[in-house]
Amino acid sequence: MTTAQPTSSLSIGIVLFPNVTQLDFTAPYEVFNRLPNTKLYLLSETLEPIRSDGGLTFLPDTTFAESPLVDLLFVPGGSGIDVKLEDKKFLAFLKTQGEQARYVTSVCTGALLLAAAGLLQGYRATTHWLYLDLLELLGVEVVKQRVVIDRNRITGGGVTAGIDFGLVIAGELFTEAIAQSIQLAIEYNPQPPFESGSPETAPEYIINSVKATSKNRLDSRRQIIQKIVAESSISISQK
Amino acid sequence: MTTAQPTSSLSIGIVLFPNVTQLDFTAPYEVFNRLPNTKLYLLSETLEPIRSDGGLTFLPDTTFAESPLVDLLFVPGGSGIDVKLEDKKFLAFLKTQGEQARYVTSVCTGALLLAAAGLLQGYRATTHWLYLDLLELLGVEVVKQRVVIDRNRITGGGVTAGIDFGLVIAGELFTEAIAQSIQLAIEYNPQPPFESGSPETAPEYIINSVKATSKNRLDSRRQIIQKIVAESSISISQK
Repeated sequence: MTTAQPTSSLSIGIVLFPNVTQLDFTAPYEVFNRLPNTKLYLLSETLEPIRSDGGLTFLPDTTFAESPLVDLLFVPGGSGIDVKLEDKKFLAFLKTQGEQARYVTSVCTGALLLAAAGLLQGYRATTHWLYLDLLELLGVEVVKQRVVIDRNRITGGGVTAGIDFGLVIAGELFTEAIAQSIQLAIEYNPQPPFESGSPETAPEYIINSVKATSKNRLDSRRQIIQKIVAESSISISQK
Repeated sequence: MTTAQPTSSLSIGIVLFPNVTQLDFTAPYEVFNRLPNTKLYLLSETLEPIRSDGGLTFLPDTTFAESPLVDLLFVPGGSGIDVKLEDKKFLAFLKTQGEQARYVTSVCTGALLLAAAGLLQGYRATTHWLYLDLLELLGVEVVKQRVVIDRNRITGGGVTAGIDFGLVIAGELFTEAIAQSIQLAIEYNPQPPFESGSPETAPEYIINSVKATSKNRLDSRRQIIQKIVAESSISISQK
Protein backbone atom coordinates (compact mmCIF):
# COMPACT_ATOMS: atom_id res chain seq x y z
CA MET A 1 0.00 0.00 0.00
CA THR A 2 2.70 2.47 0.97
CA THR A 3 5.31 3.47 -1.54
CA ALA A 4 7.91 6.19 -1.13
CA GLN A 5 6.08 9.43 -0.43
CA PRO A 6 7.24 12.89 -1.35
CA THR A 7 7.48 15.40 1.49
CA SER A 8 4.08 16.14 2.98
CA SER A 9 2.37 18.94 1.16
CA LEU A 10 -0.47 19.37 3.63
CA SER A 11 -0.46 19.24 7.42
CA ILE A 12 -3.71 18.73 9.31
CA GLY A 13 -3.91 19.43 13.03
CA ILE A 14 -6.76 17.61 14.79
CA VAL A 15 -7.41 19.27 18.15
CA LEU A 16 -8.32 16.79 20.87
CA PHE A 17 -9.49 17.19 24.45
CA PRO A 18 -11.08 15.01 27.14
CA ASN A 19 -14.71 14.09 26.42
CA VAL A 20 -14.47 14.83 22.72
CA THR A 21 -17.15 12.98 20.72
CA GLN A 22 -14.97 10.40 19.02
CA LEU A 23 -16.95 10.08 15.78
CA ASP A 24 -16.67 13.85 15.26
CA PHE A 25 -13.01 13.29 14.42
CA THR A 26 -12.69 9.57 13.64
CA ALA A 27 -15.01 9.95 10.64
CA PRO A 28 -12.99 12.78 8.99
CA TYR A 29 -9.80 10.98 10.09
CA GLU A 30 -10.75 8.01 7.92
CA VAL A 31 -10.90 10.39 4.94
CA PHE A 32 -7.86 12.49 5.90
CA ASN A 33 -5.57 9.48 6.38
CA ARG A 34 -6.23 8.47 2.77
CA LEU A 35 -5.23 11.86 1.31
CA PRO A 36 -1.94 11.90 -0.61
CA ASN A 37 1.07 13.69 0.90
CA THR A 38 -0.81 14.66 4.02
CA LYS A 39 0.56 14.60 7.55
CA LEU A 40 -1.93 14.32 10.40
CA TYR A 41 -1.23 15.60 13.90
CA LEU A 42 -3.39 14.45 16.81
CA LEU A 43 -2.91 17.45 19.04
CA SER A 44 -3.58 17.61 22.76
CA GLU A 45 -2.47 19.50 25.86
CA THR A 46 -0.42 16.45 26.93
CA LEU A 47 0.36 13.02 25.50
CA GLU A 48 -1.87 11.30 28.07
CA PRO A 49 -4.56 9.00 26.66
CA ILE A 50 -7.81 10.85 25.95
CA ARG A 51 -11.17 9.40 26.86
CA SER A 52 -14.03 10.35 24.56
CA ASP A 53 -17.46 11.25 25.93
CA GLY A 54 -18.65 7.81 24.84
CA GLY A 55 -15.81 5.99 26.59
CA LEU A 56 -13.38 5.15 23.79
CA THR A 57 -9.80 6.01 24.74
CA PHE A 58 -7.13 6.94 22.20
CA LEU A 59 -3.67 8.44 22.06
CA PRO A 60 -2.71 11.90 20.82
CA ASP A 61 0.72 12.14 19.19
CA THR A 62 1.75 15.78 19.57
CA THR A 63 1.36 18.31 22.37
CA PHE A 64 0.07 21.80 21.69
CA ALA A 65 3.47 23.11 22.77
CA GLU A 66 5.27 20.97 20.21
CA SER A 67 2.78 21.34 17.39
CA PRO A 68 4.00 22.87 14.16
CA LEU A 69 1.87 25.58 12.62
CA VAL A 70 -0.57 23.48 10.60
CA ASP A 71 -2.09 24.13 7.19
CA LEU A 72 -5.53 22.93 8.18
CA LEU A 73 -6.83 23.31 11.72
CA PHE A 74 -9.67 20.94 12.60
CA VAL A 75 -11.69 21.05 15.82
CA PRO A 76 -14.26 18.37 16.71
CA GLY A 77 -16.95 18.78 19.37
CA GLY A 78 -18.32 16.82 22.29
CA SER A 79 -19.38 17.24 25.89
CA GLY A 80 -15.80 18.26 26.74
CA ILE A 81 -16.15 21.60 24.97
CA ASP A 82 -17.85 23.10 28.03
CA VAL A 83 -14.56 23.07 29.92
CA LYS A 84 -12.56 24.23 26.89
CA LEU A 85 -14.91 27.17 26.19
CA GLU A 86 -13.43 28.79 29.28
CA ASP A 87 -9.87 27.51 28.94
CA LYS A 88 -7.94 30.61 27.87
CA LYS A 89 -4.73 28.72 27.12
CA PHE A 90 -6.61 26.27 24.90
CA LEU A 91 -8.42 29.07 23.06
CA ALA A 92 -5.15 30.97 22.60
CA PHE A 93 -3.68 27.86 20.95
CA LEU A 94 -6.64 27.71 18.55
CA LYS A 95 -6.27 31.40 17.80
CA THR A 96 -2.54 31.21 17.10
CA GLN A 97 -3.00 28.22 14.83
CA GLY A 98 -6.19 29.50 13.22
CA GLU A 99 -4.89 32.95 12.35
CA GLN A 100 -2.15 31.51 10.18
CA ALA A 101 -3.78 28.30 8.90
CA ARG A 102 -4.82 27.98 5.27
CA TYR A 103 -8.07 26.42 6.48
CA VAL A 104 -9.93 26.65 9.79
CA THR A 105 -12.47 23.89 10.20
CA SER A 106 -14.78 22.11 12.62
CA VAL A 107 -17.40 19.41 12.96
CA CYS A 108 -20.32 19.47 15.39
CA THR A 109 -19.84 21.70 18.46
CA GLY A 110 -16.19 22.24 17.55
CA ALA A 111 -17.57 25.38 15.88
CA LEU A 112 -18.40 26.80 19.32
CA LEU A 113 -14.74 26.44 20.28
CA LEU A 114 -13.58 28.16 17.08
CA ALA A 115 -16.07 30.95 17.76
CA ALA A 116 -14.97 31.28 21.39
CA ALA A 117 -11.43 31.70 20.06
CA GLY A 118 -12.69 34.52 17.82
CA LEU A 119 -12.11 32.57 14.61
CA LEU A 120 -15.63 32.41 13.15
CA GLN A 121 -16.99 35.94 13.66
CA GLY A 122 -17.77 37.49 10.28
CA TYR A 123 -18.09 34.06 8.68
CA ARG A 124 -20.99 31.80 7.79
CA ALA A 125 -20.78 28.54 9.70
CA THR A 126 -22.75 25.63 11.12
CA THR A 127 -22.80 23.26 14.10
CA HIS A 128 -24.89 20.44 15.63
CA TRP A 129 -28.60 21.27 15.16
CA LEU A 130 -29.17 21.49 18.93
CA TYR A 131 -26.61 24.29 19.32
CA LEU A 132 -27.19 26.54 16.30
CA ASP A 133 -28.53 29.38 18.47
CA LEU A 134 -25.48 29.21 20.75
CA LEU A 135 -23.23 29.66 17.75
CA GLU A 136 -25.30 32.70 16.85
CA LEU A 137 -24.90 34.08 20.38
CA LEU A 138 -21.16 34.08 19.69
CA GLY A 139 -21.65 36.45 16.76
CA VAL A 140 -21.43 33.91 13.95
CA GLU A 141 -23.66 34.00 10.90
CA VAL A 142 -25.32 30.61 11.34
CA VAL A 143 -26.36 28.47 8.38
CA LYS A 144 -28.44 25.28 8.66
CA GLN A 145 -26.51 23.16 6.23
CA ARG A 146 -24.61 19.85 6.33
CA VAL A 147 -21.28 21.48 5.42
CA VAL A 148 -20.68 25.23 5.11
CA ILE A 149 -17.77 26.73 3.20
CA ASP A 150 -17.11 30.45 3.62
CA ARG A 151 -13.75 31.46 2.22
CA ASN A 152 -11.26 29.38 4.25
CA ARG A 153 -13.70 28.36 6.97
CA ILE A 154 -15.26 24.92 6.52
CA THR A 155 -17.70 23.73 9.17
CA GLY A 156 -19.87 20.63 9.42
CA GLY A 157 -23.06 19.79 11.32
CA GLY A 158 -23.43 17.23 14.10
CA VAL A 159 -21.25 14.13 14.55
CA THR A 160 -21.81 12.11 11.35
CA ALA A 161 -21.57 15.26 9.22
CA GLY A 162 -17.85 14.64 9.61
CA ILE A 163 -17.89 12.15 6.75
CA ASP A 164 -19.49 14.58 4.31
CA PHE A 165 -17.18 17.29 5.69
CA GLY A 166 -14.08 15.13 5.13
CA LEU A 167 -15.05 14.38 1.54
CA VAL A 168 -15.83 18.06 0.87
CA ILE A 169 -12.34 18.94 2.11
CA ALA A 170 -10.79 16.21 -0.05
CA GLY A 171 -12.58 17.67 -3.07
CA GLU A 172 -11.73 21.29 -2.22
CA LEU A 173 -8.06 20.88 -1.30
CA PHE A 174 -7.19 18.03 -3.68
CA THR A 175 -9.31 16.86 -6.60
CA GLU A 176 -12.79 15.54 -7.11
CA ALA A 177 -11.27 12.26 -8.33
CA ILE A 178 -9.34 11.84 -5.09
CA ALA A 179 -12.47 12.54 -3.04
CA GLN A 180 -14.49 10.11 -5.15
CA SER A 181 -11.86 7.38 -4.84
CA ILE A 182 -11.87 7.75 -1.06
CA GLN A 183 -15.67 7.71 -1.01
CA LEU A 184 -15.64 4.43 -2.95
CA ALA A 185 -12.88 2.93 -0.81
CA ILE A 186 -14.86 3.63 2.38
CA GLU A 187 -18.07 2.59 0.59
CA TYR A 188 -19.87 5.76 1.55
CA ASN A 189 -23.21 4.88 0.09
CA PRO A 190 -25.35 5.74 3.10
CA GLN A 191 -28.69 4.01 3.61
CA PRO A 192 -30.08 5.14 6.96
CA PRO A 193 -32.66 2.62 8.17
CA PHE A 194 -34.85 5.43 9.54
CA GLU A 195 -35.78 8.98 8.49
CA SER A 196 -34.74 10.60 11.71
CA GLY A 197 -31.41 12.29 11.06
CA SER A 198 -32.48 15.93 11.34
CA PRO A 199 -35.19 17.93 13.09
CA GLU A 200 -36.71 18.48 9.62
CA THR A 201 -37.35 14.75 9.12
CA ALA A 202 -37.53 13.16 12.59
CA PRO A 203 -40.90 12.46 14.22
CA GLU A 204 -41.98 15.17 16.66
CA TYR A 205 -41.86 12.87 19.70
CA ILE A 206 -38.30 11.84 18.84
CA ILE A 207 -37.23 15.48 18.60
CA ASN A 208 -38.86 16.20 21.95
CA SER A 209 -37.14 13.19 23.50
CA VAL A 210 -33.68 14.23 22.29
CA LYS A 211 -34.30 17.82 23.38
CA ALA A 212 -35.42 16.64 26.83
CA THR A 213 -32.29 14.49 27.22
CA SER A 214 -30.10 17.42 26.15
CA LYS A 215 -31.87 20.13 28.14
CA ASN A 216 -29.47 20.30 31.10
CA ARG A 217 -26.42 20.34 28.86
CA LEU A 218 -27.95 22.97 26.58
CA ASP A 219 -28.90 25.20 29.51
CA SER A 220 -25.49 25.04 31.18
CA ARG A 221 -23.71 25.51 27.86
CA ARG A 222 -25.85 28.57 27.12
CA GLN A 223 -24.86 30.03 30.50
CA ILE A 224 -21.17 29.47 29.79
CA ILE A 225 -21.47 31.12 26.40
CA GLN A 226 -23.46 34.08 27.74
CA LYS A 227 -20.72 34.52 30.32
CA ILE A 228 -17.85 34.47 27.83
CA VAL A 229 -19.75 36.78 25.48
CA ALA A 230 -20.23 39.23 28.33
CA GLU A 231 -16.58 39.01 29.42
CA SER A 232 -14.86 39.18 26.07
CA SER A 233 -16.89 41.49 23.90
CA ILE A 234 -13.84 42.55 21.92
CA SER A 235 -12.47 39.22 20.76
CA ILE A 236 -15.79 37.83 19.66
CA SER A 237 -17.32 40.96 18.18
CA GLN A 238 -18.03 41.03 14.44
CA LYS A 239 -14.98 41.45 12.27
CA MET B 1 -26.44 13.02 31.06
CA THR B 2 -25.83 9.92 33.17
CA THR B 3 -28.33 8.91 35.79
CA ALA B 4 -28.31 5.70 37.81
CA GLN B 5 -28.43 2.80 35.38
CA PRO B 6 -29.93 -0.60 36.06
CA THR B 7 -27.65 -3.59 35.56
CA SER B 8 -26.52 -3.93 31.95
CA SER B 9 -28.97 -5.98 29.96
CA LEU B 10 -26.80 -6.29 26.85
CA SER B 11 -23.09 -6.89 26.52
CA ILE B 12 -21.33 -6.08 23.25
CA GLY B 13 -17.86 -7.41 22.55
CA ILE B 14 -15.93 -5.41 19.93
CA VAL B 15 -13.03 -7.49 18.67
CA LEU B 16 -9.92 -5.43 17.97
CA PHE B 17 -6.57 -6.26 16.38
CA PRO B 18 -3.59 -4.34 14.98
CA ASN B 19 -4.35 -2.58 11.68
CA VAL B 20 -8.09 -2.64 12.13
CA THR B 21 -9.83 0.05 10.06
CA GLN B 22 -10.83 2.39 12.86
CA LEU B 23 -14.04 3.73 11.31
CA ASP B 24 -15.32 0.15 10.92
CA PHE B 25 -15.80 0.10 14.67
CA THR B 26 -15.77 3.74 15.77
CA ALA B 27 -18.94 4.42 13.74
CA PRO B 28 -20.99 1.59 15.34
CA TYR B 29 -19.36 2.46 18.68
CA GLU B 30 -20.94 5.92 18.53
CA VAL B 31 -24.34 4.23 18.23
CA PHE B 32 -23.65 1.41 20.71
CA ASN B 33 -22.43 3.73 23.45
CA ARG B 34 -25.79 5.52 23.36
CA LEU B 35 -27.85 2.35 23.85
CA PRO B 36 -29.54 2.00 27.24
CA ASN B 37 -28.25 -0.62 29.69
CA THR B 38 -25.49 -1.76 27.38
CA LYS B 39 -21.95 -2.65 28.38
CA LEU B 40 -19.26 -2.39 25.70
CA TYR B 41 -16.06 -4.44 25.81
CA LEU B 42 -13.12 -3.44 23.62
CA LEU B 43 -11.51 -6.84 23.30
CA SER B 44 -7.96 -7.55 22.24
CA GLU B 45 -5.24 -10.16 22.66
CA THR B 46 -3.45 -7.87 25.12
CA LEU B 47 -4.09 -4.46 26.68
CA GLU B 48 -1.36 -2.85 24.57
CA PRO B 49 -2.46 0.19 22.52
CA ILE B 50 -3.72 -0.79 19.07
CA ARG B 51 -2.74 1.11 15.97
CA SER B 52 -5.34 1.21 13.22
CA ASP B 53 -4.40 0.80 9.57
CA GLY B 54 -4.85 4.55 9.16
CA GLY B 55 -2.59 5.39 12.11
CA LEU B 56 -5.00 6.23 14.92
CA THR B 57 -4.03 4.48 18.15
CA PHE B 58 -6.54 3.53 20.83
CA LEU B 59 -6.78 1.41 23.95
CA PRO B 60 -8.64 -1.88 24.35
CA ASP B 61 -10.07 -2.50 27.82
CA THR B 62 -10.38 -6.29 28.13
CA THR B 63 -8.17 -9.16 26.97
CA PHE B 64 -9.63 -12.12 25.11
CA ALA B 65 -8.64 -14.28 28.09
CA GLU B 66 -10.58 -12.10 30.50
CA SER B 67 -13.58 -11.43 28.29
CA PRO B 68 -16.97 -12.54 29.52
CA LEU B 69 -19.17 -14.42 27.07
CA VAL B 70 -20.84 -11.53 25.29
CA ASP B 71 -24.40 -11.20 24.03
CA LEU B 72 -23.40 -9.53 20.80
CA LEU B 73 -20.09 -10.29 19.10
CA PHE B 74 -18.93 -7.59 16.67
CA VAL B 75 -15.92 -7.89 14.37
CA PRO B 76 -14.68 -4.96 12.28
CA GLY B 77 -12.30 -5.30 9.31
CA GLY B 78 -9.15 -3.68 8.03
CA SER B 79 -5.78 -4.56 6.55
CA GLY B 80 -4.92 -6.42 9.78
CA ILE B 81 -7.38 -9.22 8.98
CA ASP B 82 -4.79 -10.88 6.73
CA VAL B 83 -2.74 -11.88 9.77
CA LYS B 84 -5.80 -12.83 11.80
CA LEU B 85 -7.23 -15.05 9.03
CA GLU B 86 -4.43 -17.48 9.86
CA ASP B 87 -4.30 -16.92 13.61
CA LYS B 88 -5.86 -20.10 15.02
CA LYS B 89 -6.01 -18.80 18.59
CA PHE B 90 -7.80 -15.65 17.44
CA LEU B 91 -10.28 -17.63 15.33
CA ALA B 92 -10.91 -20.03 18.21
CA PHE B 93 -11.80 -17.04 20.39
CA LEU B 94 -14.29 -15.83 17.76
CA LYS B 95 -15.75 -19.33 17.50
CA THR B 96 -16.16 -19.77 21.26
CA GLN B 97 -17.81 -16.39 21.59
CA GLY B 98 -19.84 -16.64 18.40
CA GLU B 99 -21.32 -20.06 19.10
CA GLN B 100 -22.98 -18.84 22.26
CA ALA B 101 -23.68 -15.19 21.42
CA ARG B 102 -27.22 -13.98 20.83
CA TYR B 103 -25.91 -12.04 17.83
CA VAL B 104 -22.84 -12.50 15.64
CA THR B 105 -22.05 -9.41 13.63
CA SER B 106 -19.45 -7.68 11.47
CA VAL B 107 -18.73 -4.62 9.38
CA CYS B 108 -16.55 -4.52 6.27
CA THR B 109 -13.97 -7.35 6.02
CA GLY B 110 -14.75 -8.43 9.56
CA ALA B 111 -17.11 -10.86 7.80
CA LEU B 112 -14.09 -12.70 6.37
CA LEU B 113 -12.85 -13.29 9.93
CA LEU B 114 -16.25 -14.57 11.05
CA ALA B 115 -16.31 -16.88 8.03
CA ALA B 116 -12.75 -18.08 8.68
CA ALA B 117 -13.92 -18.97 12.19
CA GLY B 118 -16.75 -21.00 10.66
CA LEU B 119 -19.46 -18.65 11.91
CA LEU B 120 -21.07 -17.53 8.64
CA GLN B 121 -21.39 -20.72 6.60
CA GLY B 122 -25.03 -21.41 5.90
CA TYR B 123 -25.92 -17.76 6.38
CA ARG B 124 -26.52 -14.83 4.05
CA ALA B 125 -23.97 -12.09 4.69
CA THR B 126 -22.12 -9.15 3.18
CA THR B 127 -18.74 -7.43 3.28
CA HIS B 128 -16.82 -4.57 1.61
CA TRP B 129 -17.65 -4.54 -2.14
CA LEU B 130 -14.04 -5.33 -3.11
CA TYR B 131 -14.07 -8.61 -1.18
CA LEU B 132 -17.50 -10.10 -1.86
CA ASP B 133 -16.05 -12.96 -3.92
CA LEU B 134 -13.60 -13.83 -1.14
CA LEU B 135 -16.49 -14.17 1.28
CA GLU B 136 -18.12 -16.50 -1.24
CA LEU B 137 -14.91 -18.56 -1.44
CA LEU B 138 -15.37 -19.17 2.27
CA GLY B 139 -18.72 -20.83 1.65
CA VAL B 140 -20.95 -17.91 2.63
CA GLU B 141 -24.09 -16.96 0.72
CA VAL B 142 -23.07 -13.46 -0.29
CA VAL B 143 -25.58 -10.63 -0.62
CA LYS B 144 -24.80 -7.19 -2.08
CA GLN B 145 -26.64 -5.09 0.45
CA ARG B 146 -25.73 -2.34 2.91
CA VAL B 147 -26.76 -4.40 5.96
CA VAL B 148 -27.79 -8.06 5.86
CA ILE B 149 -29.78 -9.74 8.62
CA ASP B 150 -30.08 -13.53 8.51
CA ARG B 151 -31.46 -14.93 11.75
CA ASN B 152 -28.90 -13.83 14.38
CA ARG B 153 -26.18 -12.86 11.92
CA ILE B 154 -26.01 -9.14 11.08
CA THR B 155 -23.33 -8.00 8.66
CA GLY B 156 -22.59 -4.61 7.11
CA GLY B 157 -20.76 -3.52 3.96
CA GLY B 158 -17.54 -1.50 3.78
CA VAL B 159 -16.33 0.94 6.46
CA THR B 160 -19.08 3.61 6.62
CA ALA B 161 -21.79 0.92 6.46
CA GLY B 162 -21.06 0.68 10.18
CA ILE B 163 -23.36 3.63 10.90
CA ASP B 164 -26.33 2.06 9.12
CA PHE B 165 -25.39 -1.27 10.73
CA GLY B 166 -25.31 0.27 14.21
CA LEU B 167 -28.72 1.87 13.77
CA VAL B 168 -30.17 -1.36 12.38
CA ILE B 169 -28.93 -3.16 15.50
CA ALA B 170 -30.39 -0.45 17.74
CA GLY B 171 -33.75 -0.93 16.02
CA GLU B 172 -33.61 -4.73 16.09
CA LEU B 173 -32.40 -5.24 19.66
CA PHE B 174 -34.08 -2.25 21.25
CA THR B 175 -36.83 -0.14 19.72
CA GLU B 176 -37.28 1.93 16.61
CA ALA B 177 -37.71 4.99 18.85
CA ILE B 178 -34.32 4.39 20.48
CA ALA B 179 -32.66 3.98 17.10
CA GLN B 180 -34.35 7.12 15.79
CA SER B 181 -33.33 9.15 18.85
CA ILE B 182 -29.71 8.09 18.39
CA GLN B 183 -29.89 8.90 14.67
CA LEU B 184 -31.12 12.40 15.51
CA ALA B 185 -28.55 12.88 18.28
CA ILE B 186 -25.69 12.03 15.90
CA GLU B 187 -27.43 14.01 13.14
CA TYR B 188 -27.23 11.14 10.69
CA ASN B 189 -28.69 12.95 7.75
CA PRO B 190 -26.07 11.98 5.18
CA GLN B 191 -25.39 14.24 2.20
CA PRO B 192 -22.44 12.80 0.29
CA PRO B 193 -20.91 15.52 -1.89
CA PHE B 194 -20.26 13.00 -4.70
CA GLU B 195 -22.09 9.99 -6.15
CA SER B 196 -19.21 7.64 -5.78
CA GLY B 197 -20.00 5.44 -2.79
CA SER B 198 -20.51 2.11 -4.52
CA PRO B 199 -19.37 0.40 -7.73
CA GLU B 200 -22.97 0.85 -8.96
CA THR B 201 -22.73 4.65 -8.83
CA ALA B 202 -19.04 5.57 -9.06
CA PRO B 203 -17.52 6.62 -12.39
CA GLU B 204 -15.76 3.78 -14.21
CA TYR B 205 -12.30 5.39 -13.96
CA ILE B 206 -12.70 5.82 -10.21
CA ILE B 207 -13.62 2.14 -9.81
CA ASN B 208 -10.59 1.16 -11.87
CA SER B 209 -8.35 3.41 -9.80
CA VAL B 210 -9.53 1.93 -6.48
CA LYS B 211 -9.24 -1.59 -7.87
CA ALA B 212 -5.71 -0.89 -9.09
CA THR B 213 -4.70 0.47 -5.66
CA SER B 214 -6.19 -2.59 -3.98
CA LYS B 215 -4.90 -5.21 -6.43
CA ASN B 216 -1.91 -6.40 -4.40
CA ARG B 217 -3.93 -6.65 -1.20
CA LEU B 218 -6.77 -8.43 -2.96
CA ASP B 219 -4.41 -10.93 -4.60
CA SER B 220 -2.55 -11.79 -1.42
CA ARG B 221 -5.78 -11.97 0.58
CA ARG B 222 -7.25 -14.34 -2.01
CA GLN B 223 -4.19 -16.58 -1.66
CA ILE B 224 -4.55 -16.65 2.12
CA ILE B 225 -8.22 -17.54 1.85
CA GLN B 226 -7.63 -20.23 -0.78
CA LYS B 227 -5.04 -21.69 1.56
CA ILE B 228 -7.28 -21.77 4.62
CA VAL B 229 -10.17 -23.17 2.57
CA ALA B 230 -7.88 -25.98 1.35
CA GLU B 231 -6.55 -26.68 4.82
CA SER B 232 -9.76 -26.58 6.81
CA SER B 233 -12.48 -27.95 4.61
CA ILE B 234 -14.45 -29.22 7.57
CA SER B 235 -14.82 -26.12 9.69
CA ILE B 236 -15.82 -23.88 6.81
CA SER B 237 -17.97 -26.29 4.83
CA GLN B 238 -21.67 -25.52 4.50
CA LYS B 239 -23.68 -26.17 7.62
